[in-house]
Amino acid sequence: MNQKGSHSVYGEFGWIQRIRTLLGVPRHGGIGIGDDAAVLPGGWLWTTDALVEGVHFLSSWPMEGVGYKSLACNVSDIVAMGGKPLYVLLTSGLSSDFGDEKYEGFLMGLDKALRDFDVALMGGDTVRSETVFFSLTVIGQAFSTPVLRSGARPGDIIYVTGVLGESALGLDILLGKNVALSQPEKYVNRHFYPPSRIAVMKKLLEKYTISAAIDCSDGFLADIDHIAEESGVGYEIELSRLPGPIGLSGGKTPTEFPWTYILSGGEDYEIIFTSPEVLPSSLADIPITSIGYITPYEKKLLWRGEVFEADLLPRGYTHF
Amino acid sequence: MNQKGSHSVYGEFGWIQRIRTLLGVPRHGGIGIGDDAAVLPGGWLWTTDALVEGVHFLSSWPMEGVGYKSLACNVSDIVAMGGKPLYVLLTSGLSSDFGDEKYEGFLMGLDKALRDFDVALMGGDTVRSETVFFSLTVIGQAFSTPVLRSGARPGDIIYVTGVLGESALGLDILLGKNVALSQPEKYVNRHFYPPSRIAVMKKLLEKYTISAAIDCSDGFLADIDHIAEESGVGYEIELSRLPGPIGLSGGKTPTEFPWTYILSGGEDYEIIFTSPEVLPSSLADIPITSIGYITPYEKKLLWRGEVFEADLLPRGYTHF
Repeated sequence: MNQKGSHSVYGEFGWIQRIRTLLGVPRHGGIGIGDDAAVLPGGWLWTTDALVEGVHFLSSWPMEGVGYKSLACNVSDIVAMGGKPLYVLLTSGLSSDFGDEKYEGFLMGLDKALRDFDVALMGGDTVRSETVFFSLTVIGQAFSTPVLRSGARPGDIIYVTGVLGESALGLDILLGKNVALSQPEKYVNRHFYPPSRIAVMKKLLEKYTISAAIDCSDGFLADIDHIAEESGVGYEIELSRLPGPIGLSGGKTPTEFPWTYILSGGEDYEIIFTSPEVLPSSLADIPITSIGYITPYEKKLLWRGEVFEADLLPRGYTHF
Repeated sequence: MNQKGSHSVYGEFGWIQRIRTLLGVPRHGGIGIGDDAAVLPGGWLWTTDALVEGVHFLSSWPMEGVGYKSLACNVSDIVAMGGKPLYVLLTSGLSSDFGDEKYEGFLMGLDKALRDFDVALMGGDTVRSETVFFSLTVIGQAFSTPVLRSGARPGDIIYVTGVLGESALGLDILLGKNVALSQPEKYVNRHFYPPSRIAVMKKLLEKYTISAAIDCSDGFLADIDHIAEESGVGYEIELSRLPGPIGLSGGKTPTEFPWTYILSGGEDYEIIFTSPEVLPSSLADIPITSIGYITPYEKKLLWRGEVFEADLLPRGYTHF
């Protein structure tokens, strides 16, 4: 999420870099900052993600959805690293006017996610906070060698699972923005109940070489940039190949609807990954779309013949 | 922390019980809710603790201290379970007016704690939040078998390390309350920079049978109650044996100064533990005080000959 309105000279990613430089001293083995999840000895994967009132959700929203999503976004980090999520700790920051009914709703949604993703709730912390927040931390086990962001090599093909942009459409519908769609509840559900890509990831790792992966959480362009930066490579993306919401057309340039949602919407929790191999167009009933190539250095975005400089298109999208 | 001003019919511990009943379904082995830390296969210990602005700290305080304490309170949970802390993830919720300088201060304090406790920062999350919060999660390794709250048996002797009450005195000094003490900075330092009891815990586990343990975070009476409840036992505590701040006297009953701080102050991060053995009065240069016995059922508090019903004395202490 962008730090909209923050007076920080660093911003979120600047702080992450600063923390990495100043405090990220390696101790006790393992691989730390710079991936979706930390890697601990023994193939354990470990991640944390927080949802904050007024930034990631509103307390007027159905809390079952917020509870489900709070686990799903953490699960997605483990899956993107090539692992199975196993355990979670929940820290709830509750305000005095949040109310038992809302918290019950949150817990019911979380419970559904625990069952769907086969994850065990192992404990946590309950604290008072004027701003309601939920901070979850998930541990999983890598199927084999963890997949890092840093493994992409020039010539690798870039792929993405599923469909991009629907979650951000659902978010703007929730926020009452002017998004005229025939099935609004479909997009809202996609926002609250993101699917796990664990089955497709498991099959990919069993059969193919996956050189790098990331989950699509900040928005496609921001996330593919993370792979490029950590791998020290560039990319060429054929933007018009990106899999957008089914049935939505229009938009003659990448800065028009619905492409803005597809490129920068975020919170899709699809997997963006690279492989030197040509892969089938679906696995475990999930579409897999090839969208471009890893290059030695330059970043380029291709749009129906035109070339965009990658750094000129906006990253992320400020919904709130 | 108490949920002061909360309209919840459950309160913190009520919610923990509800979550345990409804959502705490065991999956994938391991021991979950009901201890300082969760136990995962392979002897891994896992805990989380959050500090929230206006509840656990004020943003006007020196942030180095808050940063140090944010790790120390998590480390203490691992130590109380009989383990060595190894890794941490940090989630920071930052408001727009918190300012870079304060966050830098927090990180410098955290960095000092990382060095002192030999813990590796492995990643985390940075989010916007109107209320500033820091949610940390720590993983460690048990030295041998993890020490649970549930292992206390009738006849075991109850011990406590170090000194109780100084941290809460420091907190009230920080809050400008009328606590007249000759060395206020000593108590404030004790609040911000709690020592780790890892060395004494390691020696205890090498040489003696430790049947149950908990870290003193909520306040002595609240914490010994957790051992009693999880072990299905009672206790007899000789209150006047509890080790209070050195040089502070006065207080003819347990409801007078300084006993209120010793019994209910909280955030001491000393270890309360039980053993069938008679132990030396210090280990690794840390005092160890025997303060009572585990009994089959009844809880009693003894005070210089008088008997108090345990449930009639207040638990915890609302500082804010």
